[in-house]
This record gives sequence, C-alpha cells and structure tokens, in this order.
Amino acid sequence: MIKVGIIGVGTVGTSVVQILKENASVISARAGVDIVVKSGVVKNLSKKRDLDIVLTDNVDDVLNDPEIDIVVELMGGVDEAFVVVKKALANKKAVVTANKALLAYHRYELQDMAKDIPFEYEASVAGGIPIINALRDGLSANHIESIMGIMNGTCNYMMTKMTNEGVAYDVILKEAQELGYAEADPTFDVGGFDAAHKLLILASIAYGIDAKPEDILIEGIQNISQFDIMFAKEFGYAIKLLGIAKKDGNEVELRVHACLVPQTQMIAKIDGVMNGISVVGDKVGETLYYGAGAGGNATASAVVANIIDIARSGKSRPMLGFDKPLEGKLTLKSTDNIKSKYYLRINVSDKAGVLARITKIFEDNNISIATMLQRPCSENSANLLIATHTSIEKDIQAMIQQIAALDFVNFTPVMIRIV
Amino acid sequence: MIKVGIIGVGTVGTSVVQILKENASVISARAGVDIVVKSGVVKNLSKKRDLDIVLTDNVDDVLNDPEIDIVVELMGGVDEAFVVVKKALANKKAVVTANKALLAYHRYELQDMAKDIPFEYEASVAGGIPIINALRDGLSANHIESIMGIMNGTCNYMMTKMTNEGVAYDVILKEAQELGYAEADPTFDVGGFDAAHKLLILASIAYGIDAKPEDILIEGIQNISQFDIMFAKEFGYAIKLLGIAKKDGNEVELRVHACLVPQTQMIAKIDGVMNGISVVGDKVGETLYYGAGAGGNATASAVVANIIDIARSGKSRPMLGFDKPLEGKLTLKSTDNIKSKYYLRINVSDKAGVLARITKIFEDNNISIATMLQRPCSENSANLLIATHTSIEKDIQAMIQQIAALDFVNFTPVMIRIV
Repeated sequence: MIKVGIIGVGTVGTSVVQILKENASVISARAGVDIVVKSGVVKNLSKKRDLDIVLTDNVDDVLNDPEIDIVVELMGGVDEAFVVVKKALANKKAVVTANKALLAYHRYELQDMAKDIPFEYEASVAGGIPIINALRDGLSANHIESIMGIMNGTCNYMMTKMTNEGVAYDVILKEAQELGYAEADPTFDVGGFDAAHKLLILASIAYGIDAKPEDILIEGIQNISQFDIMFAKEFGYAIKLLGIAKKDGNEVELRVHACLVPQTQMIAKIDGVMNGISVVGDKVGETLYYGAGAGGNATASAVVANIIDIARSGKSRPMLGFDKPLEGKLTLKSTDNIKSKYYLRINVSDKAGVLARITKIFEDNNISIATMLQRPCSENSANLLIATHTSIEKDIQAMIQQIAALDFVNFTPVMIRIV
Repeated sequence: MIKVGIIGVGTVGTSVVQILKENASVISARAGVDIVVKSGVVKNLSKKRDLDIVLTDNVDDVLNDPEIDIVVELMGGVDEAFVVVKKALANKKAVVTANKALLAYHRYELQDMAKDIPFEYEASVAGGIPIINALRDGLSANHIESIMGIMNGTCNYMMTKMTNEGVAYDVILKEAQELGYAEADPTFDVGGFDAAHKLLILASIAYGIDAKPEDILIEGIQNISQFDIMFAKEFGYAIKLLGIAKKDGNEVELRVHACLVPQTQMIAKIDGVMNGISVVGDKVGETLYYGAGAGGNATASAVVANIIDIARSGKSRPMLGFDKPLEGKLTLKSTDNIKSKYYLRINVSDKAGVLARITKIFEDNNISIATMLQRPCSENSANLLIATHTSIEKDIQAMIQQIAALDFVNFTPVMIRIV
C-alpha cells in the first residue's frame, strides 16, 4: 500500500482525496497496489471538511511521518512551498506538485535534489492535459521546433466571448470574475504571467533551457478591443493569448502575448475555457493536445496520474527530461531580435495628411505594410488597422514610440503579433 | 550503450535508423545513454540501402545476438511477427513494435510473456501521436467514459476531400492511391479494419477488455456519397470514420464506422490525412490528441520514444495499463443493443405514395423521424435523407431489411450513425 500526504487541501486537494477514494478499484488495478491518502495539512483546522483523512495544521506531521511515501504539494506560492518540497525530498519522500510558480523559479534546483527520488508535476501545466508526459516521454526522439500553447483558460474564455458575442473587454472580464474564472485582481491571468510560468516549464523539457519569468517577454490581453477582433475576422484570424517557444538555430525564443492566428490552424479552433498546446517536432511534425486546463477534478486527474506512475515504477525518469546536459546548449534569444509579422491599431485624430504621415514613418523604419483598414472610431477619430510583413521586434518597438509621439495620435498604438 | 536490432527495415525502419543517428546527441542527453542500431533484418539483401548498420536476412542473427538489448519489430503481419516477438521475449530482449495487427490478435498473450521485460508499442496506434502514453499513464486516474478516434488518415483524407471539393468517392480513392495514401486493394483502410485494430488496443488500455476484430462492428466509408455530405453540411455535421469505445454500465461498446459528427466538436475539426483521438475521462473530462497517424518519420518518432523510455528506466509499466485484473470486469456489448441516432439514405423510384409507405414502416418499427429531406437523384428516382431520434441498432437493421425489400426501393438503404 502506498500512503500519500497532501499539503494544502483546497479545491484540487479535495478532488485528489475524492478521486483516490471513488476510483480506488480501477486505480489499484492500474497501479498494482492500493493508494490511500493518510493525512492532509490545512491552514484552518476549524473549517468543516467532509473528508475521511487525518487533518493537521503542521506540515511536519506529514513531512516527518515515516509511513508517508508520497508528498503532494498543493499549497501554491513560491518560497514557503520551496521549503516544504525541499524538506520532503530530504526525507526521501517522492513529491508530486501542481505548483507552476514554484517550478518557474526553482525547477533546476529541485531537479538536482530529486536525482534519485521521483518528482512529478504533470498538473503544473495545462491542468488535466498530459502534456508533460507527451513532451518529455512521447516526443523524446525529436528536436522540438516550436511550442505554441493556449495555456490560460481565463484568457481564452474572454477572447472567445469577445469574438463570438462582440462584447467589450471590461464586460467580459466582469463576467469571468463572476463565474470564478478570473480573480478579483485578474493580472496574473490576463497579464500573461500564469501562461509564462507554464511556458518556462515546457521550455526546460523541450530545450533544457533555464529561464525565469523576468527573463522573457510577457504581455497580456488587456488592450484588445472589438476593433482588433473585427480586423482578425476580416482577415481570417482568431486572437489567442499564446505561450510560444521557438527554436531558431542555437537560440530559443520564449514569449507570451496575444497573437493573430490563422483560423485554419488547429490551435485557433480551441475555444472557451479549454487549453490546447501545439508542439512541432522535427520528425513527428505537429501534434496537439487539448483539454481542461483548470478545475479541481481535471487538475487532480493529473496529480493522481503522477501518484499512480510513482506507485507503479518507484523510479523517476529525469525530472525535466534530460538525464545529462545537451551538447551545444541553447541560449535565450533577445526579445529585440524576434522576427514576426505585426498588427498595429493606431488611433488618430481624423485630419488631412494623417495617413501620409503614418505611412511615411513605416517607410522610414523600413517596415513594409501588408494590409490596411481605416475605420471611424468616434466623430473626430479613426483607427488605422495595419498588418506588416515580417519585421524585427526592435524596429517595430522603435516605430511605435515614434508614432505614439505624434500630436494627432491619441494613445500608444496597440500591437498584436501575427503567427 | 544500448544496442538495437530492427526486424524489417522498410520505410519506418529506415526512419528509425536515421532518427537515432541524426538526433543522437539530444537522444543521448534525454536517455542518459547512447543508443545505436547494431543490425537489421531484411528480406532481400541485394537491394541497395544507404544505411550504416549490419544487414542480415536471418532473424536469428538479431534474436540470438547477446549484444542486442532491444528488438524493434517492424515486419508487419500477424503469425510470423508473433513467432519473432515471442522468441525475442524468451531471449529476455525488450521489444518495441509498431504492429497493430499483431496486437489486435495477441496482445494479452504478449502481456503475459512480457511481465518482467519491457514491451512497448506506441507507434501501433495513431503513428506519431503519443496516445498510448496519454491513455495508459496520463489519464490513469480516470474511468474512461469514451474514446472516439479518427485513426485512419486515408479515410479522413478522402472524407475531407469529398466534403471540401465535392468529388465522388471513386475519384478521390484513385487520387489517394496515386498519392500513396491508399493501397491498390484499399479494403484494409476504407473498410475500417485498420482503425479497428487500433481501437482494440486502446480499449484494452482503457477497459482491460479482450476482444478481437471479428468480435466487433466494423464498417467502412465505401457507400458514402455526395448526397450524404450534402445532408451533413445542411444539418451542421462532418462525416468521419471513427473508432468508438464507450462504457455503458458494465458493458463496453466497440465499433468502427462512419459517423455524422456535429461540426462544433473538436474531432469534427480534424481534416485531411491527420489523426485525432478524443478521450473522455470521468474526472478530466474531454481531452484530445492530434497529429500525423502515419508516415515513416512520424511513426519512427513513436518507436524511438519507446526505445528511449526503455533505455531510461529499463523497466516496463504494465504493458496494457493494468497490473492486476479489474474488479467487476467489463464485457463487450452486443452490437444489436447499441443505441444511437441514425441517418438513412433511401433511394426510391419517384412514384405517388412512396413517402407514405416509407414513413409508415418507420412508425411500425417504432422509430421516430427527427428530420427529413427529399432530393431528386435521377429523372425517375429520388433520395430520401432521414435522421432518426435515438433508436436501437437491431430495430434499425430490421427496418432497413424491410425497406430494402420494397419494390420501389432501388438498393439497400445507406445508414450512417450520428454521434
């Protein structure tokens, strides 16, 4: 029998307890042993919970319990969780975590500590989708050319609703908050930080690259309006917040931002609160993984799969997929050097000569325009919606500054990269 | 160093040799050891091959080679391959196979023999998509409610072309043959048998159920015409050949046939030669896996991933996902008892009273009509295109026989089940 201790018995932790109980028979048949949750750590012992496990408010009751084989860390946060997980590993307990923030900052230190101890984290990226499994084991024969993922259900829900129902960003954010998809302070989701944590974990498995959130380009969906969606529809795109990892020679681009994605691509077809991750390998071509990226049961499904895997084998594959360092190590590409096509929305006062001035600036910056629409915005202003040919990030950024400084431009142009 | 012997060095075998050579550096970093192909078995030694391995036409040169750790079986077929694989296991060599036919017939015998020896077969289902990995390991916490898969790229290519370009079945079959997607005798693909082999493998992992191709319902796409596609488009469906496994109480339905799938479902959005498999778990909800289901490199990607996994762990997880039998074993549902909505195309001579006679037969069989279209077919005949409410397979089959026997009905009605 394998005994599990859970640190943090909230929504996901409760689902873990329930799944191990409700599906005990099939889980036991698959694992070859019975798996039971012995104890759980909670902050507030007086809160009523209908769970058939021992509860404590002292993490050491779990970490030092010689009967516990696997510690499941579901407390969230970075520093405190890091201390707890290190102690579990020091006590030779296998660890399963769903904590993406912990891994975004400390995955390589944890890998060093977990050399001979199973450490699994399937639930940390895209909830119930077994993407760690697929990328680390299923696609291991491939050089990974790119990863493009819808890894934040909140943003995808909002973008889908804005597209299908024509509602404004603020309206749909409020709805997402009421539905519990977005927090009171939604920045972590809509600002792209949640997706960035997940992207960094996948990038380590794909490329062996160590980067932290502050090292990479992270933008959100806060500036997207119905004008952008109208443009996207007119030219056959969907707007998605994507986490992108892309290999270019010996460099890897890592970035999170809104994208215009051709509607014909599979990733553009993923709507609502669902997640989906497209991975291109040099041999397998494109594969895509779709499912629920959040929710108690979906996330717990991944946690329990990790527990079963540890119970089955008792042995860990290399935590981040590399058993020894990659020859000719890949480095992080500077954001300045990203190449992309770009879409710009430039809000201008509706005066004679404006279009000539703007297009001249494009020409001066050597940025070539692919398509343009002009749409009235208010009585005295218009939106110029412009898509460029492939350009370089630093040139676009410089040009945006020049355009923003013009007296007839009403605010800093909104930019969306085109996939 | 891990040494591999390949039995059958055709398209996939050649790709395996090439991947292990071209991607040797990243594979070695992931596996922790170097992996090399030592030797390969071919039928015709005089055929020129540009491969850097020892070739032989005697399987025993590989099977009895004490230096070989892993035998990769890519010879295809059932009986001879079964002999070869059994001998490899008897010689304590790990086995990797892409042979779906072998597994469709002998997977349980092989599991019994492979208790302490790694035996992997990721490439046998959906080529490069790591679906075995996902189902066996990633979703192991779940009772699997259903599997619906586009598991034959040839059929999906043909259905997509018929839908998008309005071409007839015979025309597109010829094109598929010229492109190498379909064999000279296309029955194995278009008749659903290839998909059935794959479905049986997945059903064992999901449900622990032992069934052979002759035990289950297998139909193909040969009777589908532009009339059916017109109906599908009009009512918001795509037509797909699906392999379906579905749990209903203690019974499991296993069936392969063309389906009308609502266009809003992810599986309906998978077009062209690509494969995609939707799996619904009781906890995780729907997940979907998409990618190339065939081709040398995509299939070899899965074969090499299995080799890496064996090199990493040296230990097999339970081959078919169950370490011990499932309590309350599931049994195969009789085809007669399948419940579905049905679409029928009934070709009738265009005479007075025909519609009344047909609809009376529906009423007599207690089958309720949901929608109906009548379309002229030739000068003297018309197609009645009818969708039913949920009905029982044996009632539909009985009614089809009654309708086929009518003097004004020109041939046995074509039936497509509706998902």
